[in-house]
Parts: sequence; structure tokens; C-alpha cells
Amino acid sequence: MPANRQFVIDHLPTSRLTPDVFKASESAIPSPGEGEVLVRTRYISLDAANRAWMWGATYRAAIKAGDVMAGGGMAEVVESRAPGLAAGDLVWGDTGWQDYAVLNGKHVTKLGKAPAGEPITHLMSVYGVAGLTAYFGLLECGQPKAGETVVVSAAAGSVGSIVGQIAKIKGCRTVGIAGGQAKCDLLTRDLGFDAAVDYKAESFSKAMRAAVPKGIDVYFDNVGGSVLEACLFNMNNNGRIACCGAVSQYDSPQAHGPRGVPGLIVTKRLTMRGFIVMDFEEQNAKALAELSGWVASGQLKVREDIIDGFDNLPDALIGLLAGDNVGKRMVKVS
Amino acid sequence: MPANRQFVIDHLPTSRLTPDVFKASESAIPSPGEGEVLVRTRYISLDAANRAWMWGATYRAAIKAGDVMAGGGMAEVVESRAPGLAAGDLVWGDTGWQDYAVLNGKHVTKLGKAPAGEPITHLMSVYGVAGLTAYFGLLECGQPKAGETVVVSAAAGSVGSIVGQIAKIKGCRTVGIAGGQAKCDLLTRDLGFDAAVDYKAESFSKAMRAAVPKGIDVYFDNVGGSVLEACLFNMNNNGRIACCGAVSQYDSPQAHGPRGVPGLIVTKRLTMRGFIVMDFEEQNAKALAELSGWVASGQLKVREDIIDGFDNLPDALIGLLAGDNVGKRMVKVS
Repeated sequence: MPANRQFVIDHLPTSRLTPDVFKASESAIPSPGEGEVLVRTRYISLDAANRAWMWGATYRAAIKAGDVMAGGGMAEVVESRAPGLAAGDLVWGDTGWQDYAVLNGKHVTKLGKAPAGEPITHLMSVYGVAGLTAYFGLLECGQPKAGETVVVSAAAGSVGSIVGQIAKIKGCRTVGIAGGQAKCDLLTRDLGFDAAVDYKAESFSKAMRAAVPKGIDVYFDNVGGSVLEACLFNMNNNGRIACCGAVSQYDSPQAHGPRGVPGLIVTKRLTMRGFIVMDFEEQNAKALAELSGWVASGQLKVREDIIDGFDNLPDALIGLLAGDNVGKRMVKVS
Repeated sequence: MPANRQFVIDHLPTSRLTPDVFKASESAIPSPGEGEVLVRTRYISLDAANRAWMWGATYRAAIKAGDVMAGGGMAEVVESRAPGLAAGDLVWGDTGWQDYAVLNGKHVTKLGKAPAGEPITHLMSVYGVAGLTAYFGLLECGQPKAGETVVVSAAAGSVGSIVGQIAKIKGCRTVGIAGGQAKCDLLTRDLGFDAAVDYKAESFSKAMRAAVPKGIDVYFDNVGGSVLEACLFNMNNNGRIACCGAVSQYDSPQAHGPRGVPGLIVTKRLTMRGFIVMDFEEQNAKALAELSGWVASGQLKVREDIIDGFDNLPDALIGLLAGDNVGKRMVKVS
């Protein structure tokens, strides 16, 4: 019988994430109890939020030393003792970083098929958490109107690359913030952004101002910190900030928030709204229909960054936090 | 002919406001041009925002050295060359700190009468900017529901004292944050707050937590800084923060914003919304009708802090920034 490869948390990191936080391990393949399923992991999703979970309880319980590293994954049901699920079903769930997991049948989502001609991995990117996060965050929290200026940070990432393209579809001037000239070039050349700003460049705040001659109406914030601060100072009256994440703070939390809070929020009548993709679940079907229409018409290009091999999981997450990826990063496990 | 007493800005303050910023002066009484009115100031409103105007442009132009100090006032029309305004009319406008002002007729608001049996000053407190700010900020931005917990800072101030009482009328548990035990006692004893927390006490963050056993659903922020930070950490999921002001930062601006922005905004799905009372102008009549009903029924108690004498203006503002006042502070000029 094959063993169950796992990465277990050796100790929690206190600052920047390093490989020694994860310990490769093996266990026997577990058996599902009543109401549970045994699944075999195919792809594991890498997300900045994985790192945030190590700091304490967020919208999920904190990760502790000794735990199998948590993470969302696409998996195939091997054995089911849960109603509505059968062997062979493709599901999404918190498999963690392991080959096999036993999950509560109520906590997994049965996946449909990818649209004809599209790879199955699209169910983890544009039709998964990333695509839905971009869709709901921009349209529900950001409320962009045609002709407005939309700015998104981590714009070459899984969520940001979709946010910018949806904003463009909605008739907005779209500006991406990303790290390094190569990513910035990709945004304007391949993904249709009107402008891109390199937050690692010395002239960032000047370049930021120049990229938004009419100010910012909607800022989709993936990063927090000094980039959020720079955008706050360029917001227009009645601007909206969709707060999606704070990746700049996950790996080395800052002692303070951005200047301008709450002063600029008052004088410019800004709205900052935080959200989690699950909050909009009842609208998923409508969102997926719209997203797949845009993919089919070529208006929305899907970027994926697929790394092959279970052993690469720690480096894949560390690299993600450093901004190595373009588009949705995942590790192919089996 | 009487002279026009004025306070002129001698130099802009760079840190804490001091009396030498203001220079007593006199001018001739000006004459109104076409479309203008000459008014005689009766009461001048003291507001924390007065100080913010000295830092730069906010929702109004910045105050500069040499300007007559800006400020809202209740005034009587002496001579009118503006349509719809006549000598003897009582108006509200940006009189500045002076006995007589010439104002554009379009920029003054004709005041009605105070309800029978109520002093005219109520038009500057509960039926003026303070009352309307409390009403719209709490009800529109805060969206409190019966049974929820509402917290307000600067709770003994002109706006805060009304916010807490409206929250109580709406069936909420109401907690005020104020400086010193005397103000806290007043909130619970005289104004019906369920609890009050002294932000100057050493045990502030512990006391804050204890005062909101079910967490905070709505926080009405008048102060920013460390008090906002303490509230952020006690917010419930889907909580709302009405951003009304940042008085803690007006007199000595901080280099950073509160911790938890944007991290807690994301994980708790918070909404922070800034507003200015003018944004809701078209709903003023409805708001005033409701406010006067509550005053008449005794559910809403009006607190005013009236200082007599033009010469006291500088000290009145400096004291306001230090939190000396209870309720709406104004200076009686004539």
C-alpha cells in the first residue's frame, strides 16, 4: 500500500518563512468514518493566506506545530461514506499538504467539469477561489463604473491579474502595481492593463501619481502596507477600497497601519471594505457563468503557474510570498 | 461706527495649537457686493475640524497665515444684496472669527426657528452640524440594528453625546469612550449610556474589552489613533466603522495609522466609511424632524457648552482640542 506523504509544521515561524518550518513525513492512509470521504490530492493551491494562518486565528483556526500544513486542494474521492459523494468525484477541500486526506463530506465542494477545451486546473484558478475573489471583490466591494480608474496591487498574481482584466471589461482605466519591470511589462503587453507601476522602484510614489492622472476611484488591495498608503493619498472623493489581503504583512507583520487612516478616509469620504470570498457563495453560479463567458470570448486571459512535484511545496509557498509567481500558483501532486 | 473685531492667523502651528497662533485685530465693517450679504455674528461654533483645516486642504481650502480664522457661525443679516435674504434673517455660514462678515448669499443657510420652548442655540447643536453629523454618521454609515453594540469615542462631545443617545433609542447596547472619570460618569448617569470607558486610564484596553462582552458591531470614530486601534481589535465580523473625525491626530499628527489596517478589515469583513455631513443634505428635513421629536419626548438630551465673549475664542478652541468641553461648544459673540 502506498504511504501518505505529508508536510507537517515543525515549528511556527516568527518572522520570514523558511523551509525548516516544514518537516517531510509519512503516515498510513487513513480511513473515512461515517459522513466522511477519503480523497487523493491532485493539485494543491498556494495562497498568501496560507502564511497568515500561521499567525493565529483568521477566518479559519490557526495552524499549530505538529499539524499537517493546511491548504486548499483539488482531489478525487477514493472512498465515500458521505451522502452525495462517490468514488471518482472531483472535489475541492482543505486537503492540506498530503497525498491522502479524510474530510467531512459537508466541508468539500463537488466540482463540475471545466468548460470544453479548458484544462481542469482552471477550476482552481479562474473558476476557483482566485477568480471568484477577483469578481466579487471588484464588483461588489469596488463598484467600478465605466470611465473610472481602478488600481490593483499584486496585479500579476492569481487574483490581481483577473481583477485588472474584469475592470477593463467594465470600461475602466486599469492600473496594476507589481514588483519588477518584467511583471509590469506583462501586465500592459499581455493582459491589457492601461498602465503598470513597479512598487520596488525607487520612484514608486511619483510613478504611482503619474499613472493615475485623474486619481483613483477603486483600489483593490492585496498587499496593505506602504502600497496601500500610496494609494490612499491618490484616492478620489467617494473612492472605494476593496480589502482583499495584506500580503506585505503576512511574512513580517508591521507595527503600524498606513498613514491617512482614518484622516483621509474622512476628508475624502472613502469606503474601505474587507471581504472573504465565501461571503458571496450564493452568487457563485452567476459569477462562474460570467467568468467563463469572458474566457470563451478571449476577453479574460488565464495565467497559471503550475509546479510539478509534492516535494516542491515549501519552496513554492516561500517563493509566492516573495512574489515569484505570475498568475495562479499550484503544485501538481498526482 | 463700531469696529469689526477679528482673530487673524499670525502663523500656522506646526504642532500643538497655542494662543500666539491667533492675533487680535480690527477692521472696518465691509460692504456687501451684488449677491452678497453683510452679517453680524452672534455665536461662533468651535469644532475639532477647525484645527485640521490648518494642516492643508481637507473638504475645504486650507487656512493660511494672514487669513481671518475660519469657523462656522450663527449670524444675523444686517444688509442684503442677495436674493431671498433680508435684514434680520438668521443664517448659518462661514463667518470666521469676526463680528461682521460679508458672505456670498449662496453660501449661507437661512435658519428656521428653534422649536417652541427651546433656546436658539439648539440650531447650532442638536439641529446643527453636530446633530446632523451624529444622525447621518450613525444611521447611514453605521447601520445599527436593535440588540447590537455601538461604541462611540469623544462620547461627551457635541457629536458623540448625540450618537450614543440615538443608538440607545434604536435599541442598541451603547458604550461611550471619553477622557476622565467625570465625563464617563456623566455618560452613564445623565445620558443613558450602558457603559463608559476612560481612554486616559492605564487599563484602557482591558476596560474596553470588558465593556463590550459581545464585541463591537458599530464603532463611531471621532478620534482615530490608539482608540480606533483598540476598537478594531474588538470588532465583530461584518462590523461597521463610521469615520467622522480623527481629533487625536489634528493637534499632533501621527506618523502611522492604526495596527490592524488592513489585516483585521479583511479577516473580520469590516467596512470603514468616511463621511461629511454635507453629503446627506437632501435628507436634512427628515433628520431634523426626527431629532426634534426625540428632544420633545425627552429621549434626547441636549448638552451645550456656551462661552461668553469674543476674546475667549482662542482658548475655547485650544481647550476643545484638549477635551475640556461637554456637549457642543460655542462662543457667544453678540
